[in-house]
Amino acid sequence: MERSLDLNRRNLWSIGVDLGGTKIVVAQIEAGGKVRLRLRRPSRSSEGPAVTKAEIISGIKEILKEVGSLPACIGIGVAGQVDPNNGLVYFAPNLDWHDEPLQEDLQNSLGLPVVVTNDVRAVTWGEWIHGAGKGCNDLVCLFVGTGIGGGVVSGGQMLSGCSNTAGEVGHITIDLYGPPCSCGNRGCLEALASGWAIARQAREAILTDATAGAHLLSMAGNQGEILTAEIVVQAAKAGNLLARHLINRVEEALIAGCVSLVNAFNPCRLILGGGVVEGMPELLQRIDQGVRQKALAAAIRSFQVLPAGLKNDAGVIGAAAFAINTFKKEEGNRNDK
Amino acid sequence: MERSLDLNRRNLWSIGVDLGGTKIVVAQIEAGGKVRLRLRRPSRSSEGPAVTKAEIISGIKEILKEVGSLPACIGIGVAGQVDPNNGLVYFAPNLDWHDEPLQEDLQNSLGLPVVVTNDVRAVTWGEWIHGAGKGCNDLVCLFVGTGIGGGVVSGGQMLSGCSNTAGEVGHITIDLYGPPCSCGNRGCLEALASGWAIARQAREAILTDATAGAHLLSMAGNQGEILTAEIVVQAAKAGNLLARHLINRVEEALIAGCVSLVNAFNPCRLILGGGVVEGMPELLQRIDQGVRQKALAAAIRSFQVLPAGLKNDAGVIGAAAFAINTFKKEEGNRNDK
Repeated sequence: MERSLDLNRRNLWSIGVDLGGTKIVVAQIEAGGKVRLRLRRPSRSSEGPAVTKAEIISGIKEILKEVGSLPACIGIGVAGQVDPNNGLVYFAPNLDWHDEPLQEDLQNSLGLPVVVTNDVRAVTWGEWIHGAGKGCNDLVCLFVGTGIGGGVVSGGQMLSGCSNTAGEVGHITIDLYGPPCSCGNRGCLEALASGWAIARQAREAILTDATAGAHLLSMAGNQGEILTAEIVVQAAKAGNLLARHLINRVEEALIAGCVSLVNAFNPCRLILGGGVVEGMPELLQRIDQGVRQKALAAAIRSFQVLPAGLKNDAGVIGAAAFAINTFKKEEGNRNDK
Repeated sequence: MERSLDLNRRNLWSIGVDLGGTKIVVAQIEAGGKVRLRLRRPSRSSEGPAVTKAEIISGIKEILKEVGSLPACIGIGVAGQVDPNNGLVYFAPNLDWHDEPLQEDLQNSLGLPVVVTNDVRAVTWGEWIHGAGKGCNDLVCLFVGTGIGGGVVSGGQMLSGCSNTAGEVGHITIDLYGPPCSCGNRGCLEALASGWAIARQAREAILTDATAGAHLLSMAGNQGEILTAEIVVQAAKAGNLLARHLINRVEEALIAGCVSLVNAFNPCRLILGGGVVEGMPELLQRIDQGVRQKALAAAIRSFQVLPAGLKNDAGVIGAAAFAINTFKKEEGNRNDK
């Protein structure tokens, strides 16, 4: 099928899909980036790609039926690596997908233009076009949740790099002899400041000093293995010294990582989001102060730290924004010929 | 005066100037990026900006006289921060310049179009347009000399960032509790792997262990304060254990820094240059191997490590290439109106 926007419906609405390891969110997105309808389904990833795709299609059809008209296009953000040329999902570990032609299959099933991109890239698009990055040509998004991801806009372009992975800001090394990371390297920002890293550091600290760790351990029902970052944050807020020490170290790691990003990319705005940041909103000010103290003076001449604006809707809003941009660009290229 | 290229001479030749703290290099650059004539003058920075500018002007006039025709334009790379809009040099520490209208003054004196940019940015332009980055849309240049600098091209655009300092790749943090850097922060790549950092680490090592350091110290004529990175490299090549240990740590730091850059920017080519790399050409292979072991698999799907191609001429070649690009862009913008 030909991939092109129906110009008559271009400014009406589009569909954004956020495809994760456990759930799918499908949403109707208005032209201005607002979510009008939103539905969730399980991704049923253990049952194989065909089942997951059927869930996506059925979710989209439900929206189409509800709205009673056709969208300009469909954008899908998936937690994995995507070929930007054809929307093939090379590898999505949480879904256990390898080389899945998601874009092609959905276009064929639905008869509508579909674009697939990485989920964190989609969230960055959302923040850039409709969130805290609106109107800004140079920004870095850093999302600190269970893992750490993000994206970079520089000179008004979303960076994609040589193999479409630019902006892996969770895997910059900030402690070259530091603890192992999920990626196989050591001392990545993610290995020191992500949700999983906070939990790991807390479990290690309890093993090292049982007395200092007693309270934290009791908060996890005396089961060290279920200690989470949320519990550490709660304990720190309640004044537990070990938890506060751990959170201070996380702050230092985040500041170091943000200084690297500011010196390397020189953004006008550093946009921070994700569960860890939302759980500790005071982090924003601390990171702002830390970066202003430690980054190159010339790199922060015009610089702001802002909280991500779209929260849980960023994925669907961003996937739709990315799809619209992709089709506008393809159209522009056709018109140039 | 109007800033525009004389179209009749556009493809003939241009002038590149490399303005450093102690010397000025002025060169005639052919359209293909080759240096035809090259002359050096002292920058006489202690005598003030007017004297330095007069030296640049006299150097350019000498080239003009020698060639007997006019260049398309003049590009100047200066070791400092430059306003991209008007070529004002905000701050150049080695020259002790503050807010010097270099571009304006030279245009007025010479009646020729002049563009000023940062010296490391100029070198990156040189490598991109005429050196190891030729034909490549996504590259990172890392120059490891006395300090560490570089530049980044992503999606076919040289990144400049919000205040024209993007690409300060020497000041990414790779050891957040590491040694102080010249920039005021700690644990920057420059603080662990630059020429000055190698010398500092050697001096510290000698103080810590006089026995292990005896040979290194004797190589510096028993004057620890004049121990240089070159001496450490020489000693390491000659098999001195302390020097080899120090150089191993430098390698580890460079690998960590390059992994960060590869994960963050996802370049197709990582181009390494500068005195430290030229003094230890084996570093290239070590960094290549290290990055391939430690970077994200998806980020090195298509990836090469290459030595910088232009060596000492990169500054003048790149300044000229940047100037030509700037005027072509300005012309393009005018034609679009």
